[in-house]
Amino acid sequence: MLETDQLSLNIPDTTKPRVVIIGGGFGGINLAKKLKSEDFQVVMFDRQNYHGFWPLLYQVATAGLEPDSIAEPLRKMFGSDEFEDFHFRLVKVIGINPTVKTVSTLIGDLPYDYLVVATGTKSNYFGNDQVKKYSFPLKQIPDALNLRSQLLQCFEQANMTINPEIKQSLMNVVIVGGGPTGVELAGALAEMRKYILPTDYPGMDFTKMNIYLVEGMDRVLPPMSPQASAKTQQYLEELGINIKLNTLVESYDGNIATLKGGDQIRTHTLIWAAGVSGALVDGLPAEAVERGRILVNQYNQVLGFPEIFAIGDIAFMKTDEYPKGHPGVAQPAIQQGKLLAKNLPKLIRNQPLEPFKYFDKGSLAIVGRNRAVADLPKGKHLSGFLAWMIWLFVHIMYLVGFRNKLVVLSNWLYRFFTYERGTRLIIRPFVRKGDRVKREFFEKYNTE
Amino acid sequence: MLETDQLSLNIPDTTKPRVVIIGGGFGGINLAKKLKSEDFQVVMFDRQNYHGFWPLLYQVATAGLEPDSIAEPLRKMFGSDEFEDFHFRLVKVIGINPTVKTVSTLIGDLPYDYLVVATGTKSNYFGNDQVKKYSFPLKQIPDALNLRSQLLQCFEQANMTINPEIKQSLMNVVIVGGGPTGVELAGALAEMRKYILPTDYPGMDFTKMNIYLVEGMDRVLPPMSPQASAKTQQYLEELGINIKLNTLVESYDGNIATLKGGDQIRTHTLIWAAGVSGALVDGLPAEAVERGRILVNQYNQVLGFPEIFAIGDIAFMKTDEYPKGHPGVAQPAIQQGKLLAKNLPKLIRNQPLEPFKYFDKGSLAIVGRNRAVADLPKGKHLSGFLAWMIWLFVHIMYLVGFRNKLVVLSNWLYRFFTYERGTRLIIRPFVRKGDRVKREFFEKYNTE
Repeated sequence: MLETDQLSLNIPDTTKPRVVIIGGGFGGINLAKKLKSEDFQVVMFDRQNYHGFWPLLYQVATAGLEPDSIAEPLRKMFGSDEFEDFHFRLVKVIGINPTVKTVSTLIGDLPYDYLVVATGTKSNYFGNDQVKKYSFPLKQIPDALNLRSQLLQCFEQANMTINPEIKQSLMNVVIVGGGPTGVELAGALAEMRKYILPTDYPGMDFTKMNIYLVEGMDRVLPPMSPQASAKTQQYLEELGINIKLNTLVESYDGNIATLKGGDQIRTHTLIWAAGVSGALVDGLPAEAVERGRILVNQYNQVLGFPEIFAIGDIAFMKTDEYPKGHPGVAQPAIQQGKLLAKNLPKLIRNQPLEPFKYFDKGSLAIVGRNRAVADLPKGKHLSGFLAWMIWLFVHIMYLVGFRNKLVVLSNWLYRFFTYERGTRLIIRPFVRKGDRVKREFFEKYNTE
Repeated sequence: MLETDQLSLNIPDTTKPRVVIIGGGFGGINLAKKLKSEDFQVVMFDRQNYHGFWPLLYQVATAGLEPDSIAEPLRKMFGSDEFEDFHFRLVKVIGINPTVKTVSTLIGDLPYDYLVVATGTKSNYFGNDQVKKYSFPLKQIPDALNLRSQLLQCFEQANMTINPEIKQSLMNVVIVGGGPTGVELAGALAEMRKYILPTDYPGMDFTKMNIYLVEGMDRVLPPMSPQASAKTQQYLEELGINIKLNTLVESYDGNIATLKGGDQIRTHTLIWAAGVSGALVDGLPAEAVERGRILVNQYNQVLGFPEIFAIGDIAFMKTDEYPKGHPGVAQPAIQQGKLLAKNLPKLIRNQPLEPFKYFDKGSLAIVGRNRAVADLPKGKHLSGFLAWMIWLFVHIMYLVGFRNKLVVLSNWLYRFFTYERGTRLIIRPFVRKGDRVKREFFEKYNTE
């Protein structure tokens, strides 16, 4: 690999307007897919070379799917001739310079005509560095692989200790955050505990494995309807999840999680799914940012900069219907990306822009087999088998790429009939700064 | 994770003879599958929790398959009731003590009645520490994921430099070793260069990408027949591989590979597939080891220790037909494992043991679509489409686990019709000691 001073962005000069998109998430790809190469040169920056279907990340963490089932290489997505003036660069953006209209990356600056910030969110530890250091996040593919390995290694080790306190600590899992990620992860772990783990570890008693779901609000799935929350709570309790509502985690040292109020839970695995904040880029004036998100008008334009847009989770569009912004899920990002792809050609042709109107398709969450909840448009609610079928259908439909759908579908069918989870492999991904599992330790145990 | 002093092997006491198997490769699993829990307690040690189908590892490295397609969790494999006295432990063996009949692991010793060393091989750098430090091995799943990421990152970077010398160096790949791994990897890379890379990187000229295959002997695939070697060389040349026979790599500093004789090749990626040596365990007397392998008699018993066996690649059984030992492929390991599973019950019943007789089913190697070679028993040779179909059939048949076969088959069918390779994801696995890609560098480029 080269040092940064040996690299340059190497984007061809153009007479067309150049649109620079930061981020290959739901917003970024839906925009780029619809922008025509006759009209624009499109440059996309991302630090990953793939688009991830994050709603299924918990499946990677619980040995249900491999990464390739939920990720599609960006170059594959934009490889056809229709995207001949699309340019992907795997590089970190370090800031933007709105006055001179350039984006700064680690390997050089690039002028833009239009800039789209589609950077999404990152984990928010609310300033608790100790929790950040010792907990397991679940935001990216390496996180999920790391968590999968951690869970399996904890069971391996629990099987190799006779100290009951240590054993219990290795078998306990604490999930902080009762949103969709926390709920779906808890459900998947409960199903593993029921169907897989007793067979894998016949000498261990998995009725002693505790799965805690800790939520600060007074119900699980706070973004969904009270009906969906109540049903979800029932499902989780049926699966034996210990739900702790109105509860915050105050500290975690890698061994003991201390809850506000003083209660303690011993666990080697605390999963942080409690909150996100916008993945901001440097360079925008302070007044364009509120609560870690970028303020935009109804055309997704950033306050004071008509040529800069923010879409998806990073965008904060206040409307009468959504005074706190749109929900942090895929749909607003997808719809804003598609709308911007319509508005940018209008902008260069001096036509009036179309304002964003969120079309709420409803929300879904899955707890396990036959256990799902759905809030449909017009205030309808569904749960049980039907909601579960809808969940399956919607997720397969939205998975990008023909092959992934086939692989995911065959994995799911296989699991449905066998209760199996095929990918129980301990393969540690790249260890990141602050990861609690030390490289040295792992080498000692697992490599040559 | 716990420190070693907090763990213990925790194997139940037994009145049955205890068989300890070191290694869950082809030999180990075929032995363990056939040993009856009524007769023996079986303990298996491995540092990975899965059995890998290594002949397909090159497919993981070239974005064709994900790890779960070629690996099966050992606990899943031995999870049914029929293996009720089978005990897997994920721990490193540090030595054996034949005089007191114990195995030493990082977390304690275990007495055995019968010991089976089935540890296979490790990469052999012939004492060249520089090559070991800078080259990419291809022996384990993390190696394959690391190599996949390395190749893709080199192309990303080649796309971001205008310096022609650096660009060439990033695009060159040197494979050292013309055995099956080297040949199959070269073929897969050549097909990627032809079908995938020009679409992924439209700004780059992949006619300039050079793939070198460096072999010390006078032909590729030295273990196969001269006919197979000649055909393979023709196939490789058709695909544009630069073959260098009778050639050794003398040094490699991460940038320049120097060949014996003085020729130099600039490359960021040198793949070491040039040799293996036995993964020996400490504790056997020197006279039981020859050329890094354990000398065994025709019952796979180790010289001087009738209760210790070595099977598979680590075993060195000299016979009239195979004076240099059996070939280092899956079949001898599988057959020796199965035979030992028959002989151990005979041993405890004082019945005469059955000697090993290798049944050579032939050898196969694949260069690419429609390009494969086969040496069949009785001196028959095949090549082309028919050999390729046999290769596909044999590899799917031998893949362990029903689900894997389906996933692999659907991946291959997909690739056959589309020429696609789906898993072009840059996800760095755990970085091992001596890896040339520095953790710090990667963090700088790719993570938060």
